[in-house]
Amino acid sequence: MNLIEELAKLLTPGQVTANQTMREQHGRDESYHAMKLPDAVVFPESTEDVQKVLTFANEHDIAVVPFGLGTSLEGHVIPEKGGISLDFQRMNRILEFRPADFLVRVEPGVTRSQLNKELKQHGLFFTVDPGADATLGGMAATNASGTTAVRYGVMRDQVRDLTVVLPDGRIMKTGGLAAKSSSGYHLTGMFVGSEGTLGAITELTLRVYGIPEHVMAARVTFGNVKDAVDTAYEILAANVPIARVELVDAASIERMNRHSQTSYEEAPTLFLEFHGNEAGLNTDIAFVQELAEGHDCKSFQFETDSKARAQLWEARHQLAYAFKHASPGKHMILTDVCVPLSELTDAVLHARSQMDRLELFGGVLGHIGDGNFHTIIMIDTDNADEVARAEAFNALAVEHALERGGTCTGEHGVGKGKVKYQRKEHGASYDLMHQIKQLLDPRGIMNPGTIFPIE
Amino acid sequence: MNLIEELAKLLTPGQVTANQTMREQHGRDESYHAMKLPDAVVFPESTEDVQKVLTFANEHDIAVVPFGLGTSLEGHVIPEKGGISLDFQRMNRILEFRPADFLVRVEPGVTRSQLNKELKQHGLFFTVDPGADATLGGMAATNASGTTAVRYGVMRDQVRDLTVVLPDGRIMKTGGLAAKSSSGYHLTGMFVGSEGTLGAITELTLRVYGIPEHVMAARVTFGNVKDAVDTAYEILAANVPIARVELVDAASIERMNRHSQTSYEEAPTLFLEFHGNEAGLNTDIAFVQELAEGHDCKSFQFETDSKARAQLWEARHQLAYAFKHASPGKHMILTDVCVPLSELTDAVLHARSQMDRLELFGGVLGHIGDGNFHTIIMIDTDNADEVARAEAFNALAVEHALERGGTCTGEHGVGKGKVKYQRKEHGASYDLMHQIKQLLDPRGIMNPGTIFPIE
Ligand SMILES: Cc1cc2nc3c(=O)[nH]c(=O)nc-3n(C[C@H](O)[C@H](O)[C@H](O)COP(=O)(O)OP(=O)(O)OC[C@H]3O[C@@H](n4cnc5c(N)ncnc54)[C@H](O)[C@@H]3O)c2cc1C
Ligand SMILES: Cc1cc2nc3c(=O)[nH]c(=O)nc-3n(C[C@H](O)[C@H](O)[C@H](O)COP(=O)(O)OP(=O)(O)OC[C@H]3O[C@@H](n4cnc5c(N)ncnc54)[C@H](O)[C@@H]3O)c2cc1C
Repeated sequence: MNLIEELAKLLTPGQVTANQTMREQHGRDESYHAMKLPDAVVFPESTEDVQKVLTFANEHDIAVVPFGLGTSLEGHVIPEKGGISLDFQRMNRILEFRPADFLVRVEPGVTRSQLNKELKQHGLFFTVDPGADATLGGMAATNASGTTAVRYGVMRDQVRDLTVVLPDGRIMKTGGLAAKSSSGYHLTGMFVGSEGTLGAITELTLRVYGIPEHVMAARVTFGNVKDAVDTAYEILAANVPIARVELVDAASIERMNRHSQTSYEEAPTLFLEFHGNEAGLNTDIAFVQELAEGHDCKSFQFETDSKARAQLWEARHQLAYAFKHASPGKHMILTDVCVPLSELTDAVLHARSQMDRLELFGGVLGHIGDGNFHTIIMIDTDNADEVARAEAFNALAVEHALERGGTCTGEHGVGKGKVKYQRKEHGASYDLMHQIKQLLDPRGIMNPGTIFPIE
Repeated sequence: MNLIEELAKLLTPGQVTANQTMREQHGRDESYHAMKLPDAVVFPESTEDVQKVLTFANEHDIAVVPFGLGTSLEGHVIPEKGGISLDFQRMNRILEFRPADFLVRVEPGVTRSQLNKELKQHGLFFTVDPGADATLGGMAATNASGTTAVRYGVMRDQVRDLTVVLPDGRIMKTGGLAAKSSSGYHLTGMFVGSEGTLGAITELTLRVYGIPEHVMAARVTFGNVKDAVDTAYEILAANVPIARVELVDAASIERMNRHSQTSYEEAPTLFLEFHGNEAGLNTDIAFVQELAEGHDCKSFQFETDSKARAQLWEARHQLAYAFKHASPGKHMILTDVCVPLSELTDAVLHARSQMDRLELFGGVLGHIGDGNFHTIIMIDTDNADEVARAEAFNALAVEHALERGGTCTGEHGVGKGKVKYQRKEHGASYDLMHQIKQLLDPRGIMNPGTIFPIE
């Protein structure tokens, strides 16, 4: 069988390609994982297109890997078994605005930045904010989060309804429009975070929020990482409804200054943001300032005008790229553990010291309001020793987190890179996950090697 | 086989009974659904006890119905096929406090009020607040919510980890302690709301919150229901972080005054509550007062001291019982639809007018901040015509909600009473739910007739 010809007949020739550059673009993500090429890249334009492709692939035992923007970090989109990379870039329409219900319905290829541009005109915004621009399909499939999850929740909290196509061609809606429901099993929550292993998402109904009346950001520097993390912990313990609490260590600020032309003090720093009414914010901020002073903060700098604020978050978002650009030819490995709040300070200090011990170059940063932090390490993938040390470090960070009730991945997902930690993290429930995988995808065509090993 | 003897051997004789009164107490819930008796009532004292009972029942095709406090409203706990009622009242220990992580680990028989009493000493509280006292196992199994969901979310949002026992005897933990995770399928979310149809919950790790610095409640009366609902809608549209927004109609206030010795004005009323710091609250309240005045509110009454506030919410919680006591010998039927916010005013007005048309006696009330409202109707279950009119009314309310993207049950769950609406609400995904049910419970021993019809 000539796969390209068959797919071109199924859809239209313009929706299918085996072009080498295209295949390479769909053969890896933004991390250090090794490339593997799909046999074909397919661009569906509708739910029915997706249904045709999945049914066909299922009949012929051809692997299918859904593809958003390929910004995931654990080899999620790498077609381990070749087959079809199903790229949603042409399904990028915003289908329906329901501002009165704080809902929007979109195709999976719509990006976060595209959506927010449209929403702004309605005085609304979409809260989930990963570092990279990403598609909403990819964000749902990885249960992405980012800087604002501490206040507004993760991707799973924003998804009200999904249209999904199963490998056997069934099309279904998993939810509804009501703000809450106790009707039936929560399938929406199961498809969110399933990383393209159960089926393809072809439509999403998402919750959006009104742009807050008042926004205030601040940068707070400390003498050491411990004081920064402890301050963050106390802010949350006091139940201040803070919108963002990001840790950026001195090494990361240094990179940031070079890459984003900022001139922030190169010290362990908290980036904070507050949303609310002005009177309430002022009270909250005064209180947070007191807490920070209790930990001998070196400076507490407000970014009141919206330009300085935008620059702050843009610099924060560029941070991974700042490391990347400083190490041309190298690739990123990001750790992503999330631990119970009380374990956070220890976990961050443990990571920093192990990184130093293993002579790895990188920064510590993270969404520490949720107990989630990353280390960004740049490695030369041709240097076996450097790769081994980086992977050993990742394993140490994961073990440390799992022993404390944490997770191997707070937001990036399992992909291929964290399959090896699944049994340890989930125990007997990993078997049940596998049974569910087999129930929905008995031939194992959906993103093989992701979440579960290839048998 | 003598079931009681076999079970007594499996556990201890004191954990098993076939006493008639006991069987009757486990044969119905607090609603109008007809009683059916279990053959035995069993009181497990540990996860291992539950494992023994489920394994035994599975081998012998005996139905098992988990039982919390039996306050559910759609016949959830009625043993349609007899068998075992598995009552968790002896598993009522608080196993672990982790105040520093805002977590608590409990057995499923712990009640909400018991938990809150303990938490108070740590300056913490558990947010989910259904009208009745209930067990945390039952609340998780129904995805319960109540007055505070508009601010803190529903039961599913509070459950971080569950220990579950499957019919085949497998014991597993579904989650972890981290505030967020992208590791594997979200099994926790699937067991929450599964109404005892997939397995039994034997431990829960729950998120708790710090008691807010400042709390303020208010009662606002209006000339008609539409103005009350429209005001609630505008409060949410403005993104005021309100903690409670309850509608209570005039008929309900009248019942409330008689039952709870209050003397509230008998008019459509909003019960409001605000949590936060004092300065922020004052701003929010002034703003809400403006909105209410825009809808010609008749009065805006603050309940500032904590006693008057407690009385307000106690009266609200007693409302169903207020109706019940006014109609001795009659039984309750509560509708429970939830609709997108923009459809709320219409849905409430539709319900009120249909209730009047069908000459049913009852009140309209609800958690309208989530688009969820109830009508409480008292019926004489021996009066076939009255039952038929009440059921016709329920069906009308459900149809109206489903046609607008809403759900047949915002918080009470499907039980036996709402099985008939499942196909219409869920379409093709109802089949997938059924496949999951068959995967976990192939012999169909877990709470037969709930969520799915008996085959
Ligand atoms: C610099 C940088 C910073 C980042 N910061 C964050 C962060 O702060 N928080 C965070 O959560 N992540 C972060 N990420 C990771 C990444 O951006 C997210 O995982 C994002 O959600 C991936 O979206 P994508 O559109 O690129 O999806 P892809 O990478 O294309 O795909 C991701 C997964 O989703 C599946 N998928 C995609 N579309 C569909 C669909 N329609 N149906 C079914 N499955 C589908 C794929 O098969 C794959 O398994 C960062 C990445 C980078 C490079
Ligand atoms: C006056 C009144 C007001 C109410 N108000 C509200 C409200 O505001 N919001 C709301 O959500 N509900 C409300 N309810 C309904 C009811 O209180 C909730 O559904 C509650 O969650 C039931 O808890 P329970 O412990 O009584 O459970 P039960 O009624 O005993 O059981 C409920 C379901 O959970 C299952 N179950 C129980 N324990 C377990 C376990 N350990 N493992 C697995 N399955 C289990 C049972 O099999 C059953 O299907 C109200 C009820 C009344 C009578």
